Amino acid sequence: MPDHEKKLEEILNNIRPVDETAREAARARQARLAKPPGSLGVLEDVSVQIAGITGRVFNRLDERALLVFCADNGVVEEGVSVAPKSVTLKQAKNLANGVTGAGVLANAAGVRVYVYDLGIDGDANCEKIIDRKITRGTKDIAAGAAMTRAQAARAVLAGFDAAADAVKNGARIIGAGELGIGNTTTSAAVLAALTGKSPEETAGRGGGLTDAGLARKLEVIKTALAVNEPDADDALDVISKVGGYDIAAMAGAFIGAAFARVPAVIDGFISIVSALCAVRMEPRVREYLIASHSSCEKGYGIAEEELGIKPMLDLKMRLGEGSGCPAAMLLADHACRVLNEMATFDEAGIDDGYLDVIRKNERNGK
Amino acid sequence: MPDHEKKLEEILNNIRPVDETAREAARARQARLAKPPGSLGVLEDVSVQIAGITGRVFNRLDERALLVFCADNGVVEEGVSVAPKSVTLKQAKNLANGVTGAGVLANAAGVRVYVYDLGIDGDANCEKIIDRKITRGTKDIAAGAAMTRAQAARAVLAGFDAAADAVKNGARIIGAGELGIGNTTTSAAVLAALTGKSPEETAGRGGGLTDAGLARKLEVIKTALAVNEPDADDALDVISKVGGYDIAAMAGAFIGAAFARVPAVIDGFISIVSALCAVRMEPRVREYLIASHSSCEKGYGIAEEELGIKPMLDLKMRLGEGSGCPAAMLLADHACRVLNEMATFDEAGIDDGYLDVIRKNERNGK
Repeated sequence: MPDHEKKLEEILNNIRPVDETAREAARARQARLAKPPGSLGVLEDVSVQIAGITGRVFNRLDERALLVFCADNGVVEEGVSVAPKSVTLKQAKNLANGVTGAGVLANAAGVRVYVYDLGIDGDANCEKIIDRKITRGTKDIAAGAAMTRAQAARAVLAGFDAAADAVKNGARIIGAGELGIGNTTTSAAVLAALTGKSPEETAGRGGGLTDAGLARKLEVIKTALAVNEPDADDALDVISKVGGYDIAAMAGAFIGAAFARVPAVIDGFISIVSALCAVRMEPRVREYLIASHSSCEKGYGIAEEELGIKPMLDLKMRLGEGSGCPAAMLLADHACRVLNEMATFDEAGIDDGYLDVIRKNERNGK
Repeated sequence: MPDHEKKLEEILNNIRPVDETAREAARARQARLAKPPGSLGVLEDVSVQIAGITGRVFNRLDERALLVFCADNGVVEEGVSVAPKSVTLKQAKNLANGVTGAGVLANAAGVRVYVYDLGIDGDANCEKIIDRKITRGTKDIAAGAAMTRAQAARAVLAGFDAAADAVKNGARIIGAGELGIGNTTTSAAVLAALTGKSPEETAGRGGGLTDAGLARKLEVIKTALAVNEPDADDALDVISKVGGYDIAAMAGAFIGAAFARVPAVIDGFISIVSALCAVRMEPRVREYLIASHSSCEKGYGIAEEELGIKPMLDLKMRLGEGSGCPAAMLLADHACRVLNEMATFDEAGIDDGYLDVIRKNERNGK
């Protein structure tokens, strides 16, 4: 086994399950907070999940990082996207300068953005973009594999290292996003390969394809799957054959978050497909993931169901770049603050005996 | 017509429609921002809505206020709620001290909280609670009217003044919430009266009623509607007969926001019923409203549909106190920041000619 893949396997073998004791303690504290049981809904669940992730009941997510992996996709040559390839490089620079959608939203939410070049087809020449370029874009998946298996493993490890570096720099929660014209095509192909769903179910209009454009995209994905025959039981094989460097790196970032025991926030369609890749590589990663928003891009729901995860925001967004992550990171921090700062029934001076009936019903599963 | 009602009518007559010119200018700027058209979904819509509200394309919602109106409800005597009446006063104090759910969430989101006593059955003795007490709780709606029409008008005006004061103190967006044991019963009665829906459709389990408790609640609401015969075409009549001071004051706060031309955020079930009351009094108020989260309390969906409004957050919450507002206020500010700070295609150095096909389709309504 080549070096990169060996290192990845070692990492995957060292991802630990979440801390059930801390989870239980957080759940017990939630039950003592002065409110009707369960009335803070998902915020309660997220606070409990994060306790399990960090192993501590009380958490603060005041340092937040968004990792955005940029790469071009050879499949763009097939005419599957609205925007020209050159947009990847331009928007990577604009993101690094804080003026794209995700850049603005990250600033608004106090989230530090790290922009990575995994395979932009061009020279970034920008100090704010971290150079981890593997090649200048991938190859056309309709004609063969996007990349070699070794390159895929290298891209996953680059994402893993990015997460590790963000955590080293203080991040207590990370999000993973991407920039790469053509990547709703590769993501739809990866999702179809991993789940056995048809491209008609996994592929959408991306940046705004016409009916004819969408038909072409479906054709290309079908060809890519037929030509490459990716192995559904081997996510690295699927990524290398019909994916992209961005998908590989995001999967690596999710793995990195789980390894470092920090929560990781999923953005939209491409991000959740990458999360699914990570979970297929190591199912324990699942418990470290938080879904941000319900993306409008077709296929999101399939990945959501596969992961058994529910997003917190319903904003009809489909921009990418990690744009859904910043607000979700704030919500996750708010969830922790509720657990930290709300008064218990005792502290609130309220006799909670009146809740015994509800609690009894809950214990009886009613 | 008594003085309070006359004043209210004057206010309602002076609520202006939103500024269509500013809306159009904001919409046009959104179309020039470097992203696929519509890809920021609800955030785009909210930025355009807020431009219409303030009359300015560029806005910041960095000063935020949550108004929480506290009042007791005579109907609690009928055994319709899980918690005892004493909880209203205790939680009002805890909220004023920042340790309830909404208190913590407001602090986390940089939202200033104003706690108003409209009719708590007890002495607050707390300087942080603003005294606007009308009576110590309302009367039992199953036995007659909750309050007089003049008291209802007074409570609406108290809410109006609260919004005006918050805006005077700098708030650029307000939210309205409540504290009052028994108020899911009054809200469900108000919603049934305004919409003609049955209590079975409008009433839920509140703080956690058992099947028997819910049956009792439905019985009480039916009795209240039969005894009082509220006039569906007169929201003030409905509030005075089967509502509560909190509902009246929240309706007033929404009216006050529209009057002052600032956006107003709806919390959960009781808050959205109050918003519906405000819109029934003056339909122009509708355009000033932003829905925060999809409440789990039954009946929320009916009010949502009546108002034609969609919440941004899906958190399965049902706490009240305005707890859903803080996060939504942040999202609304983020929406404004996108419009203010994102690069246009020109600034981003991207030739957007490739989007012409999409724009043409949009113009043709495709």
